[in-house]
Amino acid sequence: MPYRETLEFMLFDWLGSRELFARDRFADHSAETFGAVFDTCERVASENFAPHNRTADLQEPQLRDDRVVLPDCSTEAHNAYVATGMLAAGQDYALGGMQLPYIAELAANGFFIKASVGLWGEAMLTVGNANLILAHGSERQRAVFTANAFAGRFSGTMCLSEPHAGSSLSDITTRAVPDGTDCADDPLGARYRVFGNKMWISCGDHDLSENIIHLVLAKIPGADGRLVAGTKGISLLIVPKLLVSADGTATGERNDVVVAGLNHKMGFRGAPNTALNFGEGKYPVHGRAGAIGYLVGEAGHGLQCMFHMMNEARIGVGFMATMLGQAGLETSSDYARSRRQGRIAGRKDPDAPQVAIIEHADIRRMLLAQKAYSDGALALCLYGARLVDDRNSGDAVSAREADGLLDLLTPVIKSWPSEWALEANNFAIQVLGGAGYTRDFPVEQYWRDNRLNMIHEGTNGIQALDLLGRKVRMRDGEALGLLKKRVQATIAAAAAHAGLRHHGDHLAEAFAKLETATAASIASQPPERGLANASVYLNGFGHTVVAWLWLDMMIRIESEVSSEADTVRLGLAAAARYFFAFELPLAAHWFGLVGNPLIMESDPSWL
Amino acid sequence: MPYRETLEFMLFDWLGSRELFARDRFADHSAETFGAVFDTCERVASENFAPHNRTADLQEPQLRDDRVVLPDCSTEAHNAYVATGMLAAGQDYALGGMQLPYIAELAANGFFIKASVGLWGEAMLTVGNANLILAHGSERQRAVFTANAFAGRFSGTMCLSEPHAGSSLSDITTRAVPDGTDCADDPLGARYRVFGNKMWISCGDHDLSENIIHLVLAKIPGADGRLVAGTKGISLLIVPKLLVSADGTATGERNDVVVAGLNHKMGFRGAPNTALNFGEGKYPVHGRAGAIGYLVGEAGHGLQCMFHMMNEARIGVGFMATMLGQAGLETSSDYARSRRQGRIAGRKDPDAPQVAIIEHADIRRMLLAQKAYSDGALALCLYGARLVDDRNSGDAVSAREADGLLDLLTPVIKSWPSEWALEANNFAIQVLGGAGYTRDFPVEQYWRDNRLNMIHEGTNGIQALDLLGRKVRMRDGEALGLLKKRVQATIAAAAAHAGLRHHGDHLAEAFAKLETATAASIASQPPERGLANASVYLNGFGHTVVAWLWLDMMIRIESEVSSEADTVRLGLAAAARYFFAFELPLAAHWFGLVGNPLIMESDPSWL
Repeated sequence: MPYRETLEFMLFDWLGSRELFARDRFADHSAETFGAVFDTCERVASENFAPHNRTADLQEPQLRDDRVVLPDCSTEAHNAYVATGMLAAGQDYALGGMQLPYIAELAANGFFIKASVGLWGEAMLTVGNANLILAHGSERQRAVFTANAFAGRFSGTMCLSEPHAGSSLSDITTRAVPDGTDCADDPLGARYRVFGNKMWISCGDHDLSENIIHLVLAKIPGADGRLVAGTKGISLLIVPKLLVSADGTATGERNDVVVAGLNHKMGFRGAPNTALNFGEGKYPVHGRAGAIGYLVGEAGHGLQCMFHMMNEARIGVGFMATMLGQAGLETSSDYARSRRQGRIAGRKDPDAPQVAIIEHADIRRMLLAQKAYSDGALALCLYGARLVDDRNSGDAVSAREADGLLDLLTPVIKSWPSEWALEANNFAIQVLGGAGYTRDFPVEQYWRDNRLNMIHEGTNGIQALDLLGRKVRMRDGEALGLLKKRVQATIAAAAAHAGLRHHGDHLAEAFAKLETATAASIASQPPERGLANASVYLNGFGHTVVAWLWLDMMIRIESEVSSEADTVRLGLAAAARYFFAFELPLAAHWFGLVGNPLIMESDPSWL
Repeated sequence: MPYRETLEFMLFDWLGSRELFARDRFADHSAETFGAVFDTCERVASENFAPHNRTADLQEPQLRDDRVVLPDCSTEAHNAYVATGMLAAGQDYALGGMQLPYIAELAANGFFIKASVGLWGEAMLTVGNANLILAHGSERQRAVFTANAFAGRFSGTMCLSEPHAGSSLSDITTRAVPDGTDCADDPLGARYRVFGNKMWISCGDHDLSENIIHLVLAKIPGADGRLVAGTKGISLLIVPKLLVSADGTATGERNDVVVAGLNHKMGFRGAPNTALNFGEGKYPVHGRAGAIGYLVGEAGHGLQCMFHMMNEARIGVGFMATMLGQAGLETSSDYARSRRQGRIAGRKDPDAPQVAIIEHADIRRMLLAQKAYSDGALALCLYGARLVDDRNSGDAVSAREADGLLDLLTPVIKSWPSEWALEANNFAIQVLGGAGYTRDFPVEQYWRDNRLNMIHEGTNGIQALDLLGRKVRMRDGEALGLLKKRVQATIAAAAAHAGLRHHGDHLAEAFAKLETATAASIASQPPERGLANASVYLNGFGHTVVAWLWLDMMIRIESEVSSEADTVRLGLAAAARYFFAFELPLAAHWFGLVGNPLIMESDPSWL
């Protein structure tokens, strides 16, 4: 079932997005304006992204004389995207935006991701980068950097990792030292010289736009010249590739940032990934080595600022995984309808014509599994997006609740789709058989592209520690309590439907096990033992949350299906039932493993 | 823990391979001769295969003027392999072989597969092809074709699929018509002209050897000129690329076989995959279109003959998947020991040096999971290989038992490693993080290469139907009964060990659920309903069988571990405990889903 129809059900019938139109900020919006945005994005994605997805995979980024060179189609896709106005879609009218709710912005971007996740990557980073500066930058920084970003003239990156410091950001050694005696007087912000090596920088160089704005984590040395250990000493700086005048024009003068190399990835090749060297003196500024950078926010508070962008990017990662799942489902569902092979088991007259493979039970199982994962992931991402809207524009009570829930669910939104929509892509390949293993069809690329999502913006192992080590514990479990309240409300509503009551019971059992596992982990001594199976806990947590959302959708479907022709709702209901029967029972198994000592008892010398 | 040490434990301490040396056929063999073969294979694999694995991935096969061109390293690897004598390792001395037991032949090939699965592919096909002709061909066919194959002069293929007939072989339309009035008098066998298109032919063309011998499934038209519907009309023919004289020399004259195209695969690129056209007239023989082919065995019995090669290839597929799992485990285990990142949870002094990531619980979990899957898969393949030896050279009773068990387990040996050693490769990537997603390390290639194994030699969906629809039912469940007897013997032996008794209980529960699910499926009406969840059943069956093998190994380990320094056995025991705690419980869940009507109730229009 195509994405658009599933989306409309989830947005309007399930999540009640029309409520948003009652808010002042969204007063000009309606289902029709959403539809117009979706129409545009669907059209541009199909015309300027989809035809180039394979090209961007085959023509890998090249490094030539310090420059990353992308295939021409990247520029076409970039320009077409900029022309849609989507870069500023969520912004104030005053900033040239459309004041589009985040849920619609995310959903609209889904068309581009589904058409080519790699070609879309630069847009995600640019918007995230601009949103961070909008939230934490000075008025001048906002005027200069975010305005150019939303207009598509400047691109953005996030520079966190270093060769020896990936998951462990406290170990970064990139330094920022004050740049001369007038360093505090620069209109663009306190001016520093940045020195260091950054690794895994997506879109770290390209010529899609006029300039690239790097947001760089660095440490400002203390009075003794030493870097502060840990994350407390980390500051955030804006480091443009080309120097920018105070009025926001790129001067054309190179800053001392240079591409040290390209990472040759298995997939996601539409977005180049680079190692960057800052301040090595290749492009001295005013005769001296050191990349010019402008402090954002307070010194020593860089990581908190960066988490603004990180949290946004984490939802983006989950959504990219989700849309790749959707793409694989569409391709394999189409294939299964047109490819004829074999005959129905039990009625094997060899003279009869072969049947479409969707008639075979095992093909149908693999489509249904894909739907349960990919539509479940879509529900999760859209639910999260609605929380963003409620946090940003809801009334005080709902904003506070949304803030807590979003904090809790962000690691789930990042990781669950990256695990299970990847598994959906695995099924998509299998539906196509040998054909799925070739470049004649896009499913093998979806699977390769999708594999990055378990890794970037914090590996899923890091997300698991975030969930079990921090999020479920914060403010004495307040956010988990909020989640429980909502889950219970769904279970109570399900009890009114004879056909759903047992699903509610199963969900209640899973949630009870979730709570038991959580409490046991918190009570563990030593504390690290309680975190040893955090990834298994995250799996169970994700399955429980997604089962809750499926049940919530089933309640809506139960009261709405009007006829056998309503294939959208009937398909979602089937996927929901599949999820409860085939998947939810796994959650109890996983929760039972939290605290299992086997892992820590296994000596490294045995492995 | 490197493959070699794990292998030695499984071969000698667990599977008692020394028993084989008491058989006449293997009287010259010993642990030392095995060791010498392993030494040679390990050395040649590391010198002539491993250095080229990435090259064979990056330099895809090219089609130039009807010829498939491979990178030079393919020839180096081929020649080095031929020089080891491994092509004939299992054959009689009279055929130039070493009379090596199959279990040692398979294990020795593991070194090549681990070094480069793609570069090894041609050898597997050549040996399988030769073994088929040895079993079903005439004396002259054996003298001509198998002798050249075992000497490395001729390569082999198996040509089953056609563009419109992959899983459904009954629909092939390749025709074989008698070639002239003297067609019955050819010394190489009854001579036919073959016409048709074959698809997915691995190593369908290359110049690694002097000639390529295609084994082709085709239908001989009936008296009315029509092809017989179904599989009954299928015959098997030898179709050499270059015509061969009756004394076995290639004449240099082309047969009418031409490469129609290359399939561009996601991985496994060391082995070219082709579409072949037979008899289209591009290379007329004696002035006429039609590829010359020689009948093998009886007309109309081709599929049974081909299953000889298919069954061997299915064990090969499972073993290739297994060895890719081993390769990923080795790479990620090495990386986890050398890469330093972060600090131990709960002791986060930021001034302390970073620790090797193997110290982190989540990394250790991912290594242990890989070990449970990959060593479990190795145990399964070696157990199957021992059954091959018992079938071929055991006493009458054990040969008969081995034959039945092997028949039963072949779909499991093919599919279980392809599912779970792939998952192991997924974990290997995750251990390396971003680095694992790049070409700087081999793990991403292992994952891509491994993905083929769920598809070729019969998709896993086909294996599932074979297991549940035929194998567990054959001869009133006789083979399943044999399996049960062996499983029960292990459970009984485990009961003597206090530390293993509860594992035995868990295995007994899983096996009971397996039997219940089997019986329910067989009793289902209509019959196709009972097969609708065959893949889920196959998952459960595989997990139960592998748990049994783990328990059987644990019994051996329990009585043998002598010291803390015995890391091989301690590691295997840890992986076994992990499998029982984290994996076996899934089997009960899967068995409970057999017969679940959700899949067949989901209308195609919903998906």
